[in-house]
Amino acid sequence: MPKIDIEAIPQTNATGYPAPFDEAVEGRWWRRLAPATGLTKMGASHVVLQPGAWSSQRHWHEEEDELVIILSGVAVLVENDGETILRAGDVAAWPAGVHNGHHLINRSSENCAFIAIGAGNKDGGGAYSDIDMTFQANGYSHKDGTPYPSARIR
Amino acid sequence: MPKIDIEAIPQTNATGYPAPFDEAVEGRWWRRLAPATGLTKMGASHVVLQPGAWSSQRHWHEEEDELVIILSGVAVLVENDGETILRAGDVAAWPAGVHNGHHLINRSSENCAFIAIGAGNKDGGGAYSDIDMTFQANGYSHKDGTPYPSARIR
Repeated sequence: MPKIDIEAIPQTNATGYPAPFDEAVEGRWWRRLAPATGLTKMGASHVVLQPGAWSSQRHWHEEEDELVIILSGVAVLVENDGETILRAGDVAAWPAGVHNGHHLINRSSENCAFIAIGAGNKDGGGAYSDIDMTFQANGYSHKDGTPYPSARIR
Repeated sequence: MPKIDIEAIPQTNATGYPAPFDEAVEGRWWRRLAPATGLTKMGASHVVLQPGAWSSQRHWHEEEDELVIILSGVAVLVENDGETILRAGDVAAWPAGVHNGHHLINRSSENCAFIAIGAGNKDGGGAYSDIDMTFQANGYSHKDGTPYPSARIR
């Protein structure tokens, strides 16, 4: 069924982030849309950020484009050069390989929902702007290459 | 700037469809978001359907996934097995290679706006369900292979 029954897809706040980086995304509830629909050439997630939650640690992807469309609520987009308010209907995009980390923070008192799309090589890795961490296909490392013990959720 | 200034991107209702298949999309006003943002691994368009307009002739792609997110208004999704109403916040997805053509029709008296995303091989071609036409990387043909004179807009 091409119209996605979003409510029927199980929602999780699971993360592979090692402590203490997992705390900021505890209120991030996501659903993977691609497995439910048969998409194989892009990734798509429906994400709800509860008040206070972050979409991720601030990061970039080396080989994957990302795009988000805000469905409801208000998110603050944080990047190297400052903050931008995103509201329902706003669209933001981050090309692969641009080393300006981004994430969304819900600083409001209401939930914020958005769709996030990714395309390209999701195994190409990337890095986090504000913490001593990078990511590879299956895991996380310190910036000196020492692995963290936890695995990425794919 | 990752937040896309949608209004700043030129809007067009251009189509490469040969007559008379172009008439149904005359009220489809689109903006390409990927060139404006540097995305290279997905295509993204902001589309406004005026009352009566179609998103396209009913079609499928052989090698490209498609996904739409409705921003405002009401669209009717038409496929082999019937019609589905799509409203703001609804998401629909069509995996590459599924030969069940789809398009959106605005049967309301208000504009309908949506974001359309494509990923995969956009040169892989496809076909139209209701008319004697297929598409290839750069053009259109009859189902017997005879080319139409018009070129695709890329």
